Amino acid sequence: MSELRKDPIVGRWVIISTDRGKRPTDFTVQPPKENSKFCPFCYGNEDKTPPEILSYRTNGTAPNTSGWNLRVVPNKFPALQIEGGLDKVGEGIFDKMRGIGAHEVIIETSDHKATFESMSKKAIEDTFWSFRDRVMDLRKDKRFRYILIFKNHGQEAGASLEHTHSQLIALPIIPKLVSEELDGSLNHYKFKERCVYCDIIRQELSDGIRVISENRDFIAISPFAPRFPFETWILPKAHDSSFEDSQKHEFEYLSEILKETLIRIGKVLNHPPYNLVIHTSPLAEQHNEYYHWHIELMPKLTQVAGFEWGTGFYINPTTPETAAKYLKEVEI
Amino acid sequence: MSELRKDPIVGRWVIISTDRGKRPTDFTVQPPKENSKFCPFCYGNEDKTPPEILSYRTNGTAPNTSGWNLRVVPNKFPALQIEGGLDKVGEGIFDKMRGIGAHEVIIETSDHKATFESMSKKAIEDTFWSFRDRVMDLRKDKRFRYILIFKNHGQEAGASLEHTHSQLIALPIIPKLVSEELDGSLNHYKFKERCVYCDIIRQELSDGIRVISENRDFIAISPFAPRFPFETWILPKAHDSSFEDSQKHEFEYLSEILKETLIRIGKVLNHPPYNLVIHTSPLAEQHNEYYHWHIELMPKLTQVAGFEWGTGFYINPTTPETAAKYLKEVEI
Repeated sequence: MSELRKDPIVGRWVIISTDRGKRPTDFTVQPPKENSKFCPFCYGNEDKTPPEILSYRTNGTAPNTSGWNLRVVPNKFPALQIEGGLDKVGEGIFDKMRGIGAHEVIIETSDHKATFESMSKKAIEDTFWSFRDRVMDLRKDKRFRYILIFKNHGQEAGASLEHTHSQLIALPIIPKLVSEELDGSLNHYKFKERCVYCDIIRQELSDGIRVISENRDFIAISPFAPRFPFETWILPKAHDSSFEDSQKHEFEYLSEILKETLIRIGKVLNHPPYNLVIHTSPLAEQHNEYYHWHIELMPKLTQVAGFEWGTGFYINPTTPETAAKYLKEVEI
Repeated sequence: MSELRKDPIVGRWVIISTDRGKRPTDFTVQPPKENSKFCPFCYGNEDKTPPEILSYRTNGTAPNTSGWNLRVVPNKFPALQIEGGLDKVGEGIFDKMRGIGAHEVIIETSDHKATFESMSKKAIEDTFWSFRDRVMDLRKDKRFRYILIFKNHGQEAGASLEHTHSQLIALPIIPKLVSEELDGSLNHYKFKERCVYCDIIRQELSDGIRVISENRDFIAISPFAPRFPFETWILPKAHDSSFEDSQKHEFEYLSEILKETLIRIGKVLNHPPYNLVIHTSPLAEQHNEYYHWHIELMPKLTQVAGFEWGTGFYINPTTPETAAKYLKEVEI
């Protein structure tokens, strides 16, 4: 049974996932992962995952059999568990609660070797629809305050299986990074009566130097103060506080710009591992004027990791202007 | 010339270090670093570093020659530069300033193969004295607001040279993680009129389950809500807001507990790479009742990296109680 624990100084909640309980020897230097032939996310192995929560099928095949285009299943090794009350308690000066939440895996395609670079725009769009479908379902559960959707691509970015997939974690707390963005956005809004992200989009479109690409509904930029080299943000041009409120045409254009951006990153940086995170409003304040949902893409360029991990302070050896120039000008 | 840039939403400053300017190809998959024979931190290569700022020598040898026990030099590839004004400017809605600061390297021993595990307590104590000497010197410079001292041990933790060394960065801003700890501590103090870290130490000593070891002046614990497996904090038992205010006997006992803790971590986790960071008060508020300086030690256990990098949300597969038990009970 896992727990959510709160740091008593900075208020950051962490999941202590004892179910995944590792012994110290599990952490010692491991041989490079062999490319094992068996993949629980491929056709024919549907019984090797927990029963599916959702699948997209166009051919009338039965649940938990082959024939699907996209499949959502509970994580077999969940960091949180879905059943039970939160049981918030103190332990002296410390605060904790039970590790209640949902932890799901979105298998975006049956093609073991596919990536967002190679997948069709339609398949990527379906991935966004599946995210939305899951959010619409999970938001009914009043224990949850935030739904975190992310993708780890490549082992160095934290992917434990090669077959492309995303993850969804529904949480009874709001992650610290999200709270900070909400607080910062709200402060800006109180002062200026404008969304800070809308202001950024206006300035970036006018300056041009950090714009990687844009289409009808979205813009891809290298942010002004990036933590990591080639960090990239994708934002809807029209103000929208929640990912799941997007219009159909927005998901179409989002798929287009995401695929294109990943192709650019792949060409310039030789297909690096990356983390993709959807930043959106908490469930209780889905519709607001101050927060602007967006996607953050962080290529994992191992040479520069390490320092930030310990200090919380970032040194980035690549200006966003340089990164944007490379990504914009690469031939795709 | 590098720049400090502020994220307009969450207020986080980052260093954009253009002097280290990397091209995209610098980030693509690199061969494992060869253990090159040449080491600029070994005897005889004193002219391969910038001239030394400080050295400890017991034998009357001349500066920038062999014979030193410890040597502090400017970083050859500094993230910040020491000369010039801050030149704070806005760029539309964005804020930036010149990348002014000091970036120094502390070479703790001439022994290429030494580590804090193998070094004498006296040599580790001297390292702390050198940190203090540099802080006392740099605090005179009124442009600086914070001095960050840290050690990356091992390539996976960000060390670019094998020869053991620490780093010091004097900054014209306060890093976000530090601000958050200060704010949190001050809130607790306003409410309780007690230091939150003193409260934690009291509770941990009384509970016992997260205590790894203690000596006269220090305690080593697995914190209640650790971000990383085997994350370890070392705190002075007596309230003290600044590292550099420590008494001589405190540096002696600090060396003892740090060496011992790293030996424990080394035995349990097979000598992992790690980051060590000194958390101390900003220069303008060195003496206060609410903040408590301490050391945070984060073994870098690669299997669990990745997810947190992108999401700012931490899943830790090892309870601090389990970590403390292993570290406490290992035979040293």
